[in-house]
Amino acid sequence: MSNKLKIVPLGGAGEIGKNMTIYEYGDEIIVVDVGVMFPTEHMLGVDLVLPDWQYLNDKKERVKAILFTHGHLDHIGGLPYFLKDGFADVPIYATRLTRGLIEGSLEEHGLLADAKLSTYQSGDRVRIGQFEIEPIRVSHSIPDSAALAIRTPVGTIVQTGDFRFDHTPIDGRTTDMAHLARLGNEGVLALLGDSTGIERESSTESEAVVSEALDRIFHDADGRIIIATFASQLQRVQEILRIARRHDRVVAPTGRSMIKNVEIARELGYLSIPPGLLVSLDEAMALPHDKVVLLATGSQGEPRAALARMANGSHRQITLEAGDTVVLSAGPIPGNEESVARVIDNLFRLGTNVIYDAISKVHVSGHGGQQDIILMQRLLNPRYIIPLHGEFRHLVLHARLAQRLGMAASDIFIVENGQTVLLDERFASVGERVPGGWVFVDGSRVGGTSSNVLREREALSQDGFVLVSIAWDAARHQMANRPRIHSRGFVPQEPNEAMFNEAADRLTQALSDATFAREDATAIENRARNVLGKLFYDETRRRPMVVPIVHMV
Amino acid sequence: MSNKLKIVPLGGAGEIGKNMTIYEYGDEIIVVDVGVMFPTEHMLGVDLVLPDWQYLNDKKERVKAILFTHGHLDHIGGLPYFLKDGFADVPIYATRLTRGLIEGSLEEHGLLADAKLSTYQSGDRVRIGQFEIEPIRVSHSIPDSAALAIRTPVGTIVQTGDFRFDHTPIDGRTTDMAHLARLGNEGVLALLGDSTGIERESSTESEAVVSEALDRIFHDADGRIIIATFASQLQRVQEILRIARRHDRVVAPTGRSMIKNVEIARELGYLSIPPGLLVSLDEAMALPHDKVVLLATGSQGEPRAALARMANGSHRQITLEAGDTVVLSAGPIPGNEESVARVIDNLFRLGTNVIYDAISKVHVSGHGGQQDIILMQRLLNPRYIIPLHGEFRHLVLHARLAQRLGMAASDIFIVENGQTVLLDERFASVGERVPGGWVFVDGSRVGGTSSNVLREREALSQDGFVLVSIAWDAARHQMANRPRIHSRGFVPQEPNEAMFNEAADRLTQALSDATFAREDATAIENRARNVLGKLFYDETRRRPMVVPIVHMV
Repeated sequence: MSNKLKIVPLGGAGEIGKNMTIYEYGDEIIVVDVGVMFPTEHMLGVDLVLPDWQYLNDKKERVKAILFTHGHLDHIGGLPYFLKDGFADVPIYATRLTRGLIEGSLEEHGLLADAKLSTYQSGDRVRIGQFEIEPIRVSHSIPDSAALAIRTPVGTIVQTGDFRFDHTPIDGRTTDMAHLARLGNEGVLALLGDSTGIERESSTESEAVVSEALDRIFHDADGRIIIATFASQLQRVQEILRIARRHDRVVAPTGRSMIKNVEIARELGYLSIPPGLLVSLDEAMALPHDKVVLLATGSQGEPRAALARMANGSHRQITLEAGDTVVLSAGPIPGNEESVARVIDNLFRLGTNVIYDAISKVHVSGHGGQQDIILMQRLLNPRYIIPLHGEFRHLVLHARLAQRLGMAASDIFIVENGQTVLLDERFASVGERVPGGWVFVDGSRVGGTSSNVLREREALSQDGFVLVSIAWDAARHQMANRPRIHSRGFVPQEPNEAMFNEAADRLTQALSDATFAREDATAIENRARNVLGKLFYDETRRRPMVVPIVHMV
Repeated sequence: MSNKLKIVPLGGAGEIGKNMTIYEYGDEIIVVDVGVMFPTEHMLGVDLVLPDWQYLNDKKERVKAILFTHGHLDHIGGLPYFLKDGFADVPIYATRLTRGLIEGSLEEHGLLADAKLSTYQSGDRVRIGQFEIEPIRVSHSIPDSAALAIRTPVGTIVQTGDFRFDHTPIDGRTTDMAHLARLGNEGVLALLGDSTGIERESSTESEAVVSEALDRIFHDADGRIIIATFASQLQRVQEILRIARRHDRVVAPTGRSMIKNVEIARELGYLSIPPGLLVSLDEAMALPHDKVVLLATGSQGEPRAALARMANGSHRQITLEAGDTVVLSAGPIPGNEESVARVIDNLFRLGTNVIYDAISKVHVSGHGGQQDIILMQRLLNPRYIIPLHGEFRHLVLHARLAQRLGMAASDIFIVENGQTVLLDERFASVGERVPGGWVFVDGSRVGGTSSNVLREREALSQDGFVLVSIAWDAARHQMANRPRIHSRGFVPQEPNEAMFNEAADRLTQALSDATFAREDATAIENRARNVLGKLFYDETRRRPMVVPIVHMV
């Protein structure tokens, strides 16, 4: 057994160390976060992306705990798949709200009864073998977020999770600077820090800015107010409730995840809602427009969420009209820009007054900018830094910032997923590289998609396919009847009948002098693929997938 | 014949009045710009998007001129298709550089010899029937851009084209405010104005800002400098040449369109290049690294362009290394964010120093912000405004801005593509709605794709297809042999052999009691589709396209 601490960052789809981090010392392992990523535009048809944790496959009995930083899906969403993969007995630790959200997700997967869940909170110390864990309260765009101080035999590691500083938070719960400073005084061996916001030069603005913008919007609005935001952004939901009350409006949530999260948060005490303030959509529909706020899902332009359905007029209950004010209190997540823009355009087409982040301060990020990242580093004063949580460029910029603050380049480790880092009291180095890719969840299957299948989907999405079915009379060395040709996603079939007829003729001719026998199906297929591929390319300059099938009759 | 002026805005893929505008008075028609759009992510496999000009189908002999504002593809790229569609004889007017770029494009389509091209420039007046056209110099991200004043029997219209103000342009060629003010004094009936930059609160920063940033980068760089920018952004190319010379470096263009545009611009006198400053890539490769600038295509992350190939190590000649400085002097066009981010990440992975718009002022937009749009309106003081060039939300915000400057809402026309506006000396109103959609260029075919085909591509891109080929012995009412099943883009075939075998068994069984005759192919196909669709969904929770083909033997 090594007397070094080994750290393994894992993630999916471009971000590094985002979804899962493994800590290994001696024969003990702890895991921080087990999240999912959403597929990028090139992962066609993929539903979810999991970090590839195969490094743990032969070490299952050594995993002593799973620790969570906060309740966003990219940090908790992989847990059901992880538990099912042979880790069902591992104790799980989370703060109260995070635990509530995990329970919801485990219940959907039928895993709740057997999961070993514990709650921890800022100030606790949890001993797990030779590790001792202290959650530290941090500000982020979901309540009850925590950085983790991990005391190990070689020193204290701090993994920030997603964080920002907000000195005037609307819930009064600031990032616990005293706690961080105390750790800094004691001595921190390594900081594993959030890099997401590094391109923002200043610090991230306070949520108070959003409250002010919303208050002005409420002041100006005469009709209904519809606000779309992240269902997990519960501090903002609380603030919307407060402002609604101040302006004598009631609030009705709409959209499955919004209704569910408001319920969970209310039960756990994360939302304080005076009687009568929260109403059902049906109740809201019966009230005068200037007494109502609808709190909706769909701020990312998701086509089936409440907001998109309102925008294209397909919402079952809500018909928007001039006089309504619609607020998108969220920024588009990279990749969603086009869907969000389409929803905004459609809302304007309905004559509503649309307010979104490009024209009003109705959203701020949950991730700290450069000044937040600097403050974290100054408080902790770590010996080493491993920038995490971000794409590669963010890690590099984070490293440069750390150097500007006086760190030596050799004390900063820019790593990829699966690149281990080894630490002891005196020395840090990169270690072996272990599998650090990702695994697709496709339909009901984990790992159900190969890169081959994705390439086929990509090709099909561009040019479709042409299938040609040939019945070959092997005895007479000729086609038993005319080849059948069908296409999908290539060109409209009807206006191109002539081309498809030509294709059948050309193929018939190409096979007329052939002497293929029963065992030559592959040769027939190859000839068909060549003849038709060329014909279609010449006619259309496109390259559909040509799929011949031969029946020997 | 009406004594009203009719204006028809056309565009493609979300932007309004972007690619083509039709002016009709009496029996005379003129057309401003004939551009293309690039497909959005949902237009799978589509190569180009043309505005649908079918309104002109029965008016071909009435079209008297095609007038161009500037040489970007979204304003000139549709011309070859337009000329081929029955407008080959229409006279074409463009400024010198725009004409040069048009000639290049017509030559590629074999249309140059017969095209009736004329050059106009700022200050000219061109009479076309009852219209008189005056180009007005404007600043934009390509030289020789023009707004057009169109004098008509009912009054003067000004269509801005794409524009910004830049009071300290690097080529000294400011937007011609005196000309605009003179028109404003004479009286402008309607302003058709660029709305693209309306979400920017201030004015757009001067190109001089970019020059300063580039100069600093050159000052700091010890190794090679690679700059990727738009090949048509020739003012910036000129500036890069100037700065390179100042820092004693030579410049080598790389990438087909960069080499071609530099050639055209140099020939026409739009680039002034001292002897020895411009070298070939081969010559540059032989020089010390600190004497070289490579000017590359690929600033949008296009996978086959020079920059992406350098970033992923597949460029034939250039191998990047630590010490190289790579500048992306461009902002990502909406939709390209992900590709650009991937290229930046890979450049950082090679150890190069990457500089891009989020961390340095190496790009400014060619479109004016709110202050530019205000200045245009103040100079022209039009009676009516038709906001154009932008998505619907931009038009609405432009209209609101105009109202803040004192225009009545009833004097502002927010229209969609194909929505005509009618004007005379005393009155303006919306007229009939004419076809205003778009037409896809798919491979070699104009209009070669239907929405049906696009839906098929979308379905195929998500779940792929399963094809099942059945040879049916109609005489014996049974399958002649085992059904053949092939899939692509669904699940990997090999690890799922058991499922596909099960599918063949299940289908054999489902057809075992059938008595289908020769004419019942469709019934067999339907049964196959049902049986297999259900099986695959149950097994995988995916819905591949099931394509049965029946051979009667």
